[in-house]
Amino acid sequence: MKQLDETILTNVIKRRPEDSFKGNFGKVVLIGGNANFGGAIIMAATATVYAGAGLVTTATDTANSTSLHAQLPETMFVNYYDKVQLSHLVSEATVVVVGPGLGDDFHSQEVLAKVFANTNSDQTVVIDGSAITMMAHNKIEQPAGNIIFTPHQMEWQRLSGIAIAEQSPAANQKVQQQLGATVVLKKHHTEIYTGSDTYQLTIGTPAQATGGMGDTLAGIIGGFTAQFADPTQATLAAVYAHSAIAEQLAQTQYVVLPHQISRALPIFMKKYEN
Amino acid sequence: MKQLDETILTNVIKRRPEDSFKGNFGKVVLIGGNANFGGAIIMAATATVYAGAGLVTTATDTANSTSLHAQLPETMFVNYYDKVQLSHLVSEATVVVVGPGLGDDFHSQEVLAKVFANTNSDQTVVIDGSAITMMAHNKIEQPAGNIIFTPHQMEWQRLSGIAIAEQSPAANQKVQQQLGATVVLKKHHTEIYTGSDTYQLTIGTPAQATGGMGDTLAGIIGGFTAQFADPTQATLAAVYAHSAIAEQLAQTQYVVLPHQISRALPIFMKKYEN
Amino acid sequence: MKQLDETILTNVIKRRPEDSFKGNFGKVVLIGGNANFGGAIIMAATATVYAGAGLVTTATDTANSTSLHAQLPETMFVNYYDKVQLSHLVSEATVVVVGPGLGDDFHSQEVLAKVFANTNSDQTVVIDGSAITMMAHNKIEQPAGNIIFTPHQMEWQRLSGIAIAEQSPAANQKVQQQLGATVVLKKHHTEIYTGSDTYQLTIGTPAQATGGMGDTLAGIIGGFTAQFADPTQATLAAVYAHSAIAEQLAQTQYVVLPHQISRALPIFMKKYEN
Amino acid sequence: MKQLDETILTNVIKRRPEDSFKGNFGKVVLIGGNANFGGAIIMAATATVYAGAGLVTTATDTANSTSLHAQLPETMFVNYYDKVQLSHLVSEATVVVVGPGLGDDFHSQEVLAKVFANTNSDQTVVIDGSAITMMAHNKIEQPAGNIIFTPHQMEWQRLSGIAIAEQSPAANQKVQQQLGATVVLKKHHTEIYTGSDTYQLTIGTPAQATGGMGDTLAGIIGGFTAQFADPTQATLAAVYAHSAIAEQLAQTQYVVLPHQISRALPIFMKKYEN
Repeated sequence: MKQLDETILTNVIKRRPEDSFKGNFGKVVLIGGNANFGGAIIMAATATVYAGAGLVTTATDTANSTSLHAQLPETMFVNYYDKVQLSHLVSEATVVVVGPGLGDDFHSQEVLAKVFANTNSDQTVVIDGSAITMMAHNKIEQPAGNIIFTPHQMEWQRLSGIAIAEQSPAANQKVQQQLGATVVLKKHHTEIYTGSDTYQLTIGTPAQATGGMGDTLAGIIGGFTAQFADPTQATLAAVYAHSAIAEQLAQTQYVVLPHQISRALPIFMKKYEN
Repeated sequence: MKQLDETILTNVIKRRPEDSFKGNFGKVVLIGGNANFGGAIIMAATATVYAGAGLVTTATDTANSTSLHAQLPETMFVNYYDKVQLSHLVSEATVVVVGPGLGDDFHSQEVLAKVFANTNSDQTVVIDGSAITMMAHNKIEQPAGNIIFTPHQMEWQRLSGIAIAEQSPAANQKVQQQLGATVVLKKHHTEIYTGSDTYQLTIGTPAQATGGMGDTLAGIIGGFTAQFADPTQATLAAVYAHSAIAEQLAQTQYVVLPHQISRALPIFMKKYEN
Repeated sequence: MKQLDETILTNVIKRRPEDSFKGNFGKVVLIGGNANFGGAIIMAATATVYAGAGLVTTATDTANSTSLHAQLPETMFVNYYDKVQLSHLVSEATVVVVGPGLGDDFHSQEVLAKVFANTNSDQTVVIDGSAITMMAHNKIEQPAGNIIFTPHQMEWQRLSGIAIAEQSPAANQKVQQQLGATVVLKKHHTEIYTGSDTYQLTIGTPAQATGGMGDTLAGIIGGFTAQFADPTQATLAAVYAHSAIAEQLAQTQYVVLPHQISRALPIFMKKYEN
Repeated sequence: MKQLDETILTNVIKRRPEDSFKGNFGKVVLIGGNANFGGAIIMAATATVYAGAGLVTTATDTANSTSLHAQLPETMFVNYYDKVQLSHLVSEATVVVVGPGLGDDFHSQEVLAKVFANTNSDQTVVIDGSAITMMAHNKIEQPAGNIIFTPHQMEWQRLSGIAIAEQSPAANQKVQQQLGATVVLKKHHTEIYTGSDTYQLTIGTPAQATGGMGDTLAGIIGGFTAQFADPTQATLAAVYAHSAIAEQLAQTQYVVLPHQISRALPIFMKKYEN
């Protein structure tokens, strides 16, 4: 298992060409946030915007539209129950992030089905949180696209069928290869299974152990894969950046809040661009 | 009466184990905030999140869901009139904080009854504000759980039957022991009655004398008892931290606002972890 | 005409007694903010809270409750069309501030009538903006209380009948004495007519010439009169503080926004407490 | 083609006269923001307020009123479907900014028609985003006023009929002169066509290539033309300031967010006032 280090950031974060416009940095669509878990999709979208994605649209319950725009005017809003808008949005996207705060009831399943029906093989599709759980529980097929799963250990157990205690690198990799997807297995020392490679994150801090961290990671992956050429490398860089920023903040903070990581992204990323 | 000093912070605020996840730091549910007093539950939940609780859910009037998420995406929202969700949420919690901005009308009483019917003896239950008043006025029985009351002097008069002028340590302790609860009696030099011990806070500043301070204290107690092993010690540390931060801010501020104390928690706590 | 200087601040801003609680610093009720002008009452309430008032309630259109609490959880909210709540609130207040963003239509008049019917002679009543205009246009009688009008020149013309070009100190004072009220006439070098005295503000900056400054001033007057013994002195200090902070900010800013003045109050006031 | 440099700022940004009031700095009305694109009009209005306009009103979908006031109490709100209010507002304005996030459906067209029917030749009218697209697609006539178009290259293609690849200075200028308007053609090295002059912006950074930058520029133009005497010079200064601030922020940030540019305006402008 290869260990990730700072070089992943310098490899991935490229100086932007002088003559660039927002269209060069991707269209990201984030889908999630029911009436209870609106904060999750707000945190994810915040991460995507601060990571530098060109255009960010958040498809969520209308209950969340005002709290979203109150803190993040830089994203567009779509009612995720509007099937016409949602289908069009997903099919036009560069990157799709689905799952943060989506819930798992009948309505959530409808939204997920509509998303999965509209992805295509040119897209990166980040599947997070309850979207993973619904896939496992309802035996939903993996959609078209370059798929990145971001489960925590229990979600991975549901998706892979491997009990947490038996989630060895070999067992995990076997299922990941069957899935033909990248798997970011979130845990102490997160593991990334991608293609035939496995990577381990050896940085991070227990100050990150708070609700919303995973949503924020999904958003950063969305932002990085939208901008940087190689989705695998971009994912590795996103995972590393998320914990590296947390470590920096944890030098003076007992707990690090998810939105603080997002806000720190523009200055953090600048240090590594080349 | 023992005087609290800084050592309570170093005794309580433990360095987090490297291999920890959000589940290690408790599930806190805060219940309160009617259509008029939404700010109170927002301030309490903010305190709990910034104190480092693992998962924080706020059960409040739907009128408050957007203002809550507009400033604190790190909490989940539940409509406190949804009895099924509320019951489930309370019964699954590590710590329950009930009362900030709850009001005392018929609807508030229904919510309180539903909360009290679902606590259990493994939980810490912080009872604040109008929840105390309703218990006194409506002769509501104390619920299951490790109970922490956080009354100001008038609320304590209502609950204990001791007129403010007669709230001597001996009289207070007698009732506290009958209740079998911890009592945080908020006043100039707050007193904490717990088990057979009594403690006094000798720090604090009149710059704290502003609306919302008590809501914030309830939230910090919620956050500390969710994370730290001994609920009594955690409560003492929370009371001390609340006023110590206020004192620091008051060195340069004429008035200290409640949300400022919450925002200062991560950096303040870091200095005492060991 | 006496010129105000910094000594008004040291005379008024008293060190708070160690043993004080929020009840010592007044209950302020602010009434205003229709569906169009919600920002005005938010700015006024923000000023009152940051000035250190003990308890602050904002009575406004329900359309504004969420935007209010999204940035200022430290205030309570009341629907100003709820006549029972509004009457009770006003009659229990220490200080009433009415007018910021209230508008002047039929609904606004109803609200104003309800406010004026419930003030009493122990209260300070700050009458601002369209409340002044409605009094003039509809020949509404001055309510009970220690009245402080805060008109700009056009509003003063409406109330006093003195055309702007003829608003000389002598003419202004004559009407002010007939009114038996304090008049804060907002203009370049604001004039304050109170009792038999007249004062002039000689500080201030054109960077303050932006929408919302008057709402903020009304809020600071509300906060100061709630806390400090002499309402006249408190008003003078509020007027001075408002422009002194603006001057400080304008050293580095081309324009000073109203909310910036409010946020600066706690640190500014600390420098003058004695 | 003349190259813009810093002197445009010192030429335009005048020290405010001591005896000034908000009425001296213009009434700006911004119209835009449907239920999906509310963030766009919020970003534009934020820019106008922080640029120092005297009075700023935002006419938008009611879905956006709360998110607007939650972050920008310094603007007034009008429901843009209220034709009476909208007509009155536009006809009374000094500067009209129409288009950010307006959308292009039937409702958007109705709003645009009402705006265009109420402008007059004394006003500056900034036409941005989908307002340009609707003019082109629906062959809507240019309204009365000193017109400033702020298209990106695709919008300019729609309006001018010149394909992007053929947008040479000569071709652009020819159409601009037929229009009798100022054209701010947003691109890498933005070009401004005005009267018989053409200007080029040679500063700017790819960190600006993110959604909302154009909305922010439209808002700054609105704020500058409201305050400064010569609309052409004010427009040039606004374009320059927008990118100069972005360059400053980009020295330490990989991406610059639109709201950051607006927040930086007061301090930036101060350095150039004379």
